[in-house]
Amino acid sequence: MKILGLVVEYNPFHNGHLFHLKESKEIVNPDCTVAVMSGNFVQRGEPSIIEKFARARTAIMLGIDIVLELPVVYSLQDAGGFATGAIRTLEALGVTDIVFGSETGELSLLNEVSKILLAEPEEYRHRLHSHLKDGHSFPNARKYAIRDYVSGKDRELSFRVEEIGSSNNILGLEYLRAIREIDSKIRPHAIKRKGAAYSDDENRGSFSSATAIRKMLRLGDIESVKNAVPGEMFKTLLKEIRAGRGPILACDMESFFLPFLRLISRNDYSDFYGFVEGLDARFCECSKRGDLQTFLDCVKTKRFTLSRIRRLMYYPALKFTVDLIERSNRLGPQYIRLLAFNENGREYLSEIKKSIGLPIINTVSMWRKVLDEAKKKEMKIDENLFKEQLERDLLAVDFYSSFYSSPENRSKGSDMLSRVIYERDS
Amino acid sequence: MKILGLVVEYNPFHNGHLFHLKESKEIVNPDCTVAVMSGNFVQRGEPSIIEKFARARTAIMLGIDIVLELPVVYSLQDAGGFATGAIRTLEALGVTDIVFGSETGELSLLNEVSKILLAEPEEYRHRLHSHLKDGHSFPNARKYAIRDYVSGKDRELSFRVEEIGSSNNILGLEYLRAIREIDSKIRPHAIKRKGAAYSDDENRGSFSSATAIRKMLRLGDIESVKNAVPGEMFKTLLKEIRAGRGPILACDMESFFLPFLRLISRNDYSDFYGFVEGLDARFCECSKRGDLQTFLDCVKTKRFTLSRIRRLMYYPALKFTVDLIERSNRLGPQYIRLLAFNENGREYLSEIKKSIGLPIINTVSMWRKVLDEAKKKEMKIDENLFKEQLERDLLAVDFYSSFYSSPENRSKGSDMLSRVIYERDS
Repeated sequence: MKILGLVVEYNPFHNGHLFHLKESKEIVNPDCTVAVMSGNFVQRGEPSIIEKFARARTAIMLGIDIVLELPVVYSLQDAGGFATGAIRTLEALGVTDIVFGSETGELSLLNEVSKILLAEPEEYRHRLHSHLKDGHSFPNARKYAIRDYVSGKDRELSFRVEEIGSSNNILGLEYLRAIREIDSKIRPHAIKRKGAAYSDDENRGSFSSATAIRKMLRLGDIESVKNAVPGEMFKTLLKEIRAGRGPILACDMESFFLPFLRLISRNDYSDFYGFVEGLDARFCECSKRGDLQTFLDCVKTKRFTLSRIRRLMYYPALKFTVDLIERSNRLGPQYIRLLAFNENGREYLSEIKKSIGLPIINTVSMWRKVLDEAKKKEMKIDENLFKEQLERDLLAVDFYSSFYSSPENRSKGSDMLSRVIYERDS
Repeated sequence: MKILGLVVEYNPFHNGHLFHLKESKEIVNPDCTVAVMSGNFVQRGEPSIIEKFARARTAIMLGIDIVLELPVVYSLQDAGGFATGAIRTLEALGVTDIVFGSETGELSLLNEVSKILLAEPEEYRHRLHSHLKDGHSFPNARKYAIRDYVSGKDRELSFRVEEIGSSNNILGLEYLRAIREIDSKIRPHAIKRKGAAYSDDENRGSFSSATAIRKMLRLGDIESVKNAVPGEMFKTLLKEIRAGRGPILACDMESFFLPFLRLISRNDYSDFYGFVEGLDARFCECSKRGDLQTFLDCVKTKRFTLSRIRRLMYYPALKFTVDLIERSNRLGPQYIRLLAFNENGREYLSEIKKSIGLPIINTVSMWRKVLDEAKKKEMKIDENLFKEQLERDLLAVDFYSSFYSSPENRSKGSDMLSRVIYERDS
């Protein structure tokens, strides 16, 4: 049996995603397609434009059989943590193949580099350290360190190292590293990305990037959105917007984060993951600025990318302690959270039910029962970490829904009230 | 020499305040008049309508010689903590007489009751405990306990106990208790309040209450405000509003507190003062509601007044830990923070400079020097508590100013950049 796995955010699902999905299915010819998707907060350090269940249902309509939620402790991490959470989730669900888009579309280059990343030979580590010390951002320092390391050893690779700096190649590298790390048998496939680049925010018609589409939504340019996303996604967006549950934009949270960050002392930051190398002091000092963009610009250096700073902003809010994130990256997700599935997905789930190594959460309010059963089955999970990861997912939804425009939606936005979506074939 | 002390909020300074000030001066005939004033957060658990320096300058224009800031760890407490901070500040500054408004205007009644409050005889304590257990709010339980205690002992008093339940009488009682508590020689005087009751929010023309005037400001009814406050106060209000520094309204903070309170777990609350008798659980549960008013109504019981819940909301934000507030109530303020003075005030300050028992902070940025000098003079202060109280005052200003309408004001709103106001006679 072939099970295709995809790592997605679908924020929102656009024509490029549909194209990628079709191509992936052509390559793998799967019996079932599983997507692990960021929940209400995405990897670039932002809220998702609409909440996770609406995005999950749409993904089912558009060809995915099962949508799992990537726990927020992973979805709000850098490429490394993000990939660790995603790959281990897909592995637990029995995925046999994953397909990811990358700028290069070529697996051999990424494979060679990912070996270096996992092995971390002494010389590479030394070079990485020295480039970081020079003030380069982590992605750049890593690129230079790999270039230094392979130069002389592998002439072809050394010429092509520049390519690994683009965002989807970085993610691809991390998927490959994460697969190797757990000795997974998952077969990776890379395909060349179609259409606009990830961070391109220009309207490129029917192949606009998610960034460009979010900009259209921010500006209220509904016609352009209609042109750039599949019909099902467009219907969902309209429905959610009309119901007062979106679009939730990063700038909507500005009014919260300015006062919030001012309340955090330099000392407080030491509890939270990632506030290293003086970032605690920079956050304190810069929070005195007058708006969020000025805050971000003030914290930013060559060393720290804007996405990283945006993600970090959420860590004190969602209580991403050093201990929680380090254990999460070491031990992986402690549960599989099901958001939506169709008939085909349901059949596959009932098939693997007995052999699966992680507890599956259908309905969050039943978490205690799920945990007890997992213990009875002697699954290898850490009970505390299970609770802490799930608590952050609940917290993320409570926080997110407090930004809905209508008070009624805000009070109904709790994850505890949610139910998994089963889309019967119609 | 006679030094008149007043405990004020001036939020804003209205005609009733001016009347009270004149009457007080007639009673005491002072050489100097000192007001201790709440800073940017007031006792009813709200931000002040405009920031403290603008209110302090206006108070000087209208007849006060020296304005001191009541540290926020006291200004956001119940009547007991508020009075403790205020009376100890006035005592430290050498005040000889205080005058306070009260519904009764009669000192003897309040004096008799305040003796009971300080002595806390066994029978009274027992009665208080039992009324609290029946679910009454603290002010009511106390009133009933006093009634029970004096009945049979003091017939006249027992008939009049009902009067001590009104808000200004409660404050008056606490002033008297705080004066006795430190064996102060301050002479208290009570005068009958003129005009509208404290919580009356109706427009009563030129004698409208501060609550009513804040409502006019919220509704933008500038003409009514003009009629209800002295000319100087009106000019200040207009200036601050035009500059984008006000009016700051409780409802402006709603957008912050809804997401903020959702991020606090029941466990977190145990660090903070006042979350007793299940209030932690109530806060957690009720923060899932859709707006702040619904939240407040949800937390409220017969036992907990709305003002108390409003104040408590600020405790996790401003880090009012159990330890900080308990030590503050025991040891009192560790510094005197000067906001504004005139020529007469300056002369008095230079006179008492040598005998004063608490360090005076003119300019916050010089706090380290002030602390060092206090230690050299062997003043009886607790260095840690000094820092912690001052840190909360700074935090309160940073938090407050993040709600200014213009980003430029927000970035200039730091207390560290402020200077004491010296109004020379013109």
